[in-house]
Amino acid sequence: MSFEAAGRADAAPGQGDENTGEYFARGPGRPRAEGYDERVLDAVVGLIDAGERVSVSAVVGASGVSRAAVYRRWSSIAELVADALDRGRAAIEFDLSGDVRDTIVAVLFGGSRTARGAGYSDRRFRTRLVLTLQNPELQRAYWQSHVRRRRVAMRDALNEAVRRGELRDDLDVDACIDLINGVFYYQFVVRGARWEEPETMARCREAFDVVWRGMSAR
Amino acid sequence: MSFEAAGRADAAPGQGDENTGEYFARGPGRPRAEGYDERVLDAVVGLIDAGERVSVSAVVGASGVSRAAVYRRWSSIAELVADALDRGRAAIEFDLSGDVRDTIVAVLFGGSRTARGAGYSDRRFRTRLVLTLQNPELQRAYWQSHVRRRRVAMRDALNEAVRRGELRDDLDVDACIDLINGVFYYQFVVRGARWEEPETMARCREAFDVVWRGMSAR
Repeated sequence: MSFEAAGRADAAPGQGDENTGEYFARGPGRPRAEGYDERVLDAVVGLIDAGERVSVSAVVGASGVSRAAVYRRWSSIAELVADALDRGRAAIEFDLSGDVRDTIVAVLFGGSRTARGAGYSDRRFRTRLVLTLQNPELQRAYWQSHVRRRRVAMRDALNEAVRRGELRDDLDVDACIDLINGVFYYQFVVRGARWEEPETMARCREAFDVVWRGMSAR
Repeated sequence: MSFEAAGRADAAPGQGDENTGEYFARGPGRPRAEGYDERVLDAVVGLIDAGERVSVSAVVGASGVSRAAVYRRWSSIAELVADALDRGRAAIEFDLSGDVRDTIVAVLFGGSRTARGAGYSDRRFRTRLVLTLQNPELQRAYWQSHVRRRRVAMRDALNEAVRRGELRDDLDVDACIDLINGVFYYQFVVRGARWEEPETMARCREAFDVVWRGMSAR
């Protein structure tokens, strides 16, 4: 298996779009190497933060984990860097037992740390955007492994609101998620605004209300 | 006047958010140096495309324009690079004599080259995003000099639709523009999608319909 391969040859079924569990499903009989993943990912984050090029040799040197173990776990540098860039970013979860709209608002606007993950800094976010814009393979890997599966919770929430008749049943749910997420990205990427600024959150909150009205069944 | 200064000390009134004309208003008695601006900007674009650092010396060397002339025209490297990154990006214009919604749809979805400018490549767009994400001063300069004033046409169009009673009069128009623009940025920045892909445009088109419904007076 070439480390340069874009896809994971050993990906198990269930690793697709809808899998919100582990980053990667593992086949039976392959035990998780305790602590190795974390050491490797910490080493990659360290290299990125130091502005150094991420190569297998550099990762082996910085982590102390064997080359064979790194190869076994990740099938490409892009997948490895994507995982490292997502460190500290929490999964979004919506409790759908109550009002769907209120629940989404509480998660998105109940403090930026909730939705973005407490360990996820502006600097890490900026680094992720720069690296993915510079490297299309990494952008694809990050999208496939992390963004797509983080979107599942929002998709489930919107679909539940459709089922309850609160949202229109002809919605393109993916386009709606792009809208909701896009307004947050716009603040950071184009305006250069900080999440902590009250006016940033106020704009996103207003935008969310417009989207929700546009998605509503009435 | 320091070239490192973030603001333009010689900015004339009318250079603010609402000015859609010249990139920079000029005071009386300061003639435009014919062709000099273009030579300087071409030189900056050349340096950026070659991956070289943009310094005044490099710009002077590559353009043949004197250091004094560069200093007279731009008050900071950030302003100069912002102008260079916007080269080939056309202003958006809406003819508001007809139906506002139809007019916006025709401009946004009548072919990506219309809205983005025929001379503006995906590569240039990517470069602009990377450089502005890496340099907050450049991001501010680009926002102030280019994005904010490109948004004026959309603001005018939405305000006209509000005036005609087609859109709600309690809209936060800036938040709505963030939404409409944000969904396009999301395609490129997060999905890594290309404007040319029909499904990309279809998603943005669906998203626009949701936003318009959410902005509508009914």
